[in-house]
Amino acid sequence: MESLVRQSKKLCPYIGRTSASSLKQLGNGRLTQKAGQCPIMGKAMGVRGFKSDAGSNAESATVDVHAAVDTSKGTCPHAAQYSPVYPSSRLDNYPFGMTQRGLGKVPTQDAHNATTFNYESFYENKINAKHQDKSYRYFNNINRLAAEFPRAHRGSIEEDKVTVWCANDYLGMGRNPVVVDAMHETLDKYGAGAGGTRNIAGHNRHAVELEAAIADLHKKEAALVFSSCYVANDSTLSLLGQALPNCVYFSDASNHASMIHGIRHGGSEKVVWKHNDLADLEAKLARYPKSTPKVIAFESVYSMCGSIGPIEEICDLADKYGAITFLDEVHAVGMYGPTGAGVAEHLDFEHYHSGAQTQRQPIMDRVDIFTGTLGKAYGCVGGYIAGSAKFVDMVRSYAPGFIFTTTLPPATMAGARAAINYQKATMKDRVAQQTHTRYVKDKLANRGIPVVPNPSHIVPVLVGDAQKAKAASDLLLTKHQIYVQAINFPTVPIGQERLRVTPTPGHHEGLCDELVAALEDVWQELDLKRVEDWTAEGGLCGVGEGVEVEPLWSEEQLSYGRD
Amino acid sequence: MESLVRQSKKLCPYIGRTSASSLKQLGNGRLTQKAGQCPIMGKAMGVRGFKSDAGSNAESATVDVHAAVDTSKGTCPHAAQYSPVYPSSRLDNYPFGMTQRGLGKVPTQDAHNATTFNYESFYENKINAKHQDKSYRYFNNINRLAAEFPRAHRGSIEEDKVTVWCANDYLGMGRNPVVVDAMHETLDKYGAGAGGTRNIAGHNRHAVELEAAIADLHKKEAALVFSSCYVANDSTLSLLGQALPNCVYFSDASNHASMIHGIRHGGSEKVVWKHNDLADLEAKLARYPKSTPKVIAFESVYSMCGSIGPIEEICDLADKYGAITFLDEVHAVGMYGPTGAGVAEHLDFEHYHSGAQTQRQPIMDRVDIFTGTLGKAYGCVGGYIAGSAKFVDMVRSYAPGFIFTTTLPPATMAGARAAINYQKATMKDRVAQQTHTRYVKDKLANRGIPVVPNPSHIVPVLVGDAQKAKAASDLLLTKHQIYVQAINFPTVPIGQERLRVTPTPGHHEGLCDELVAALEDVWQELDLKRVEDWTAEGGLCGVGEGVEVEPLWSEEQLSYGRD
Repeated sequence: MESLVRQSKKLCPYIGRTSASSLKQLGNGRLTQKAGQCPIMGKAMGVRGFKSDAGSNAESATVDVHAAVDTSKGTCPHAAQYSPVYPSSRLDNYPFGMTQRGLGKVPTQDAHNATTFNYESFYENKINAKHQDKSYRYFNNINRLAAEFPRAHRGSIEEDKVTVWCANDYLGMGRNPVVVDAMHETLDKYGAGAGGTRNIAGHNRHAVELEAAIADLHKKEAALVFSSCYVANDSTLSLLGQALPNCVYFSDASNHASMIHGIRHGGSEKVVWKHNDLADLEAKLARYPKSTPKVIAFESVYSMCGSIGPIEEICDLADKYGAITFLDEVHAVGMYGPTGAGVAEHLDFEHYHSGAQTQRQPIMDRVDIFTGTLGKAYGCVGGYIAGSAKFVDMVRSYAPGFIFTTTLPPATMAGARAAINYQKATMKDRVAQQTHTRYVKDKLANRGIPVVPNPSHIVPVLVGDAQKAKAASDLLLTKHQIYVQAINFPTVPIGQERLRVTPTPGHHEGLCDELVAALEDVWQELDLKRVEDWTAEGGLCGVGEGVEVEPLWSEEQLSYGRD
Repeated sequence: MESLVRQSKKLCPYIGRTSASSLKQLGNGRLTQKAGQCPIMGKAMGVRGFKSDAGSNAESATVDVHAAVDTSKGTCPHAAQYSPVYPSSRLDNYPFGMTQRGLGKVPTQDAHNATTFNYESFYENKINAKHQDKSYRYFNNINRLAAEFPRAHRGSIEEDKVTVWCANDYLGMGRNPVVVDAMHETLDKYGAGAGGTRNIAGHNRHAVELEAAIADLHKKEAALVFSSCYVANDSTLSLLGQALPNCVYFSDASNHASMIHGIRHGGSEKVVWKHNDLADLEAKLARYPKSTPKVIAFESVYSMCGSIGPIEEICDLADKYGAITFLDEVHAVGMYGPTGAGVAEHLDFEHYHSGAQTQRQPIMDRVDIFTGTLGKAYGCVGGYIAGSAKFVDMVRSYAPGFIFTTTLPPATMAGARAAINYQKATMKDRVAQQTHTRYVKDKLANRGIPVVPNPSHIVPVLVGDAQKAKAASDLLLTKHQIYVQAINFPTVPIGQERLRVTPTPGHHEGLCDELVAALEDVWQELDLKRVEDWTAEGGLCGVGEGVEVEPLWSEEQLSYGRD
């Protein structure tokens, strides 16, 4: 320690004039905590994961103790007004915030005689904090029945059936015979598990063929499959920040938790830009030299408000300022574009559908890194990245979340590949999904039941109160046998609680009418706000603000996929 | 920025006498990089993920730029001498180390006119670095055939068959009809995927029943399933460090990458103790007040050297110094103990086997947190934690790696549960596995082919050279149709390269004899070192050092599970 202090005093620009005894008082671990309280170092260390918003879904829902410094909390120009409101007490009692990290005392004999920390009581307090702010999650036991899609039974009582209206098996591929048959066959031939990591006994034809199918889908040189897209995003973003010298991340304010954590783990500088706000992004990009490596991380379809990222314009900015683009198409793959490659493909619909020559470089070719999931529209589980061969090989070679984990089961990979190839060949399912989405949105609009306006397949029904959202969800389930999970803080900001409805091709008009009638009944019974009430209050998230949004799927595009 | 600088000068114990203009020169992001070069702050920030050993498997294989401060690199008392040796140039060119993070220049107009960073060329350099240090991984395409276990075909040519000797499907459960039938049935009834996160449409009877089976296995109140045990370890350790006030981690030097990264992401102080060295652990624990929350993170079976952690003694130290124990039983569940709960159960074998009263508290009850996998001995995929109800509920409520990811498929969970219950009811498979392990170890010992001595089921055949290990693996595959992956740096330290052999119940004596004959041929053809050569050099990893190790499974215990 003595030599360390001497060495520090010589090298550090700040502590040269601080006495060695003062430094020794602080010690190594203590210094870290002290630095966390410093407004400059604290910020720097915050970037490195010092603070946590473990329960938070999006950048904009992050409790940011540096809000005074970083004022980039966003609004959603397409639809949702993402201006999170937190109770003022929140910064004081945020469960895992820095505020708990007092400067520890230097150990003394008395301290050594102290009692053991009460771990159980601590855990209990953390759970109670969730109860107190109404963010405690009660899981609903829902067993989706393949033969009766979109029906499910609750718990272990098979007769207690409900209609599922909030799953992310958007196209019903989880019960599509093409997928299920491929899985049965592979399970019989190759067994239940892969038996190892990709490097040790867990690399096989199913991984090779699935990655080839994904690379082909996104028109990229290579792809890499992970346990989930949470892991794909976390591992890849984290690696980029660690690898690229002096890298700066530019993260959309509404990005998913997996991207937020990947960026935090990467440890490089992070700049949050207002959700979908190109002017804000450009202003922030312009502050850095063009030669500085930059990663613009964003999504195509944002799952909780249904807004869609301006991909082409972001690619323009990336070119102008020397950045690469990292696009999460988790809620879009299988759902948009002639072959289901996502929104980037959809933006050049005719090019990929009829082969019509485009006047510009196709947008899929301009996005550097795609990430996607095999667990939503493709009905299975797992996630992936797609990009240049060199990029993918680097991630394959360095990302611990890829290297040190068991490969997905062969049957899962075979099922996912069958789903991708099936959706490449037909637009039928996604057109039916979009058609049912429009039907539900129209019917709800007619009744003044508020839906956050957006151009995608998400139907976010605004409630605006945590307890009422839970009550509405419970009432739908118990009275109407309809399951729609309430989405509360921290997944969405306080005051923007909602029911997130996701129609599928299996939700035909009869089921849609049932849903709308049930929502009408619940709105009446709980006296929930309608569009006119929101209008009277000045609007929220686009509701009651006269926002009109064109769906991404045009009528002409829909016509290609109708029976 | 101006007010920030004023505020900083007032609060910070170090920069009070530094001029405001000097601070402004540095800026926010730059300050981080500067601090990374400081021997005190650099260390503090290293704890927070600033440095990376992305490709490294164990603490001891980490390139530690603070080695001068932390001299706790370990030796393996049971067997492997874990004293990693790195080329001296390594610190300079380590791919993602701090050394690349020079102090960036303040942007100027010239800088803005600079060219874009060459990303592709950067990726290529990173891949070339892997080629240059021989750590580039070539995946072997191996398709394990359920009906011919442990045989597999290579690539897409089904006639090109090999015997797999390095998978972690230790008990062949991946092809056990009990598992496969449960999966077929569940797949037909509930479809391919779970359809959502646990909170939104992805919670079901399969999750509930699997978690109940796991909690029962480990005799804990609750359990929680994750996408993988990499995610379980990462998420849980990370959360503990973020949640517990002033938490200190005590991490075994040979811990798995998932634990290293979880600890790093947790952002709390980390103390690495020498592998399995209780005196070192105690000396380090004693430096902290008893009231300070402490997490001792370790494994039961260390996968690359086969050593086993001294669980009971670590629990004693945890009690004495007020710590909780986090025990990774990934390579032990299914494999040890009368019901396959792992090494902690095995240590009270008679208590759980015959119900004989123990004089002490059973060790399973003393371990606070177990983590395990469903992807190795249980033949499927996925990971878990088990512990007190409050602890598990806290992780369930706060860990983003659990919250924001799709649930494992119902069929996978049903298969894993069937595997756990099957192995609870019979010792036959794990006794056969141990018997074959002994047979192989004995035969190799007779020929002087060096095996790192250990008490477990792992057979680490020491080669001691990266290129020769790869050559041996290639020769086994091409000449003998035997697949054993070479394990090179950074999974093991340079100079300790090995072939990691994993017998199963399916590797009967005939196959074992084939393996031994093939290894003999390879040892001759490549002129690899034998035990006597290692002895002449003073020994390595216990090889040639006269180390004798008793297997954990006693003869009497084995007799319980023989047909």
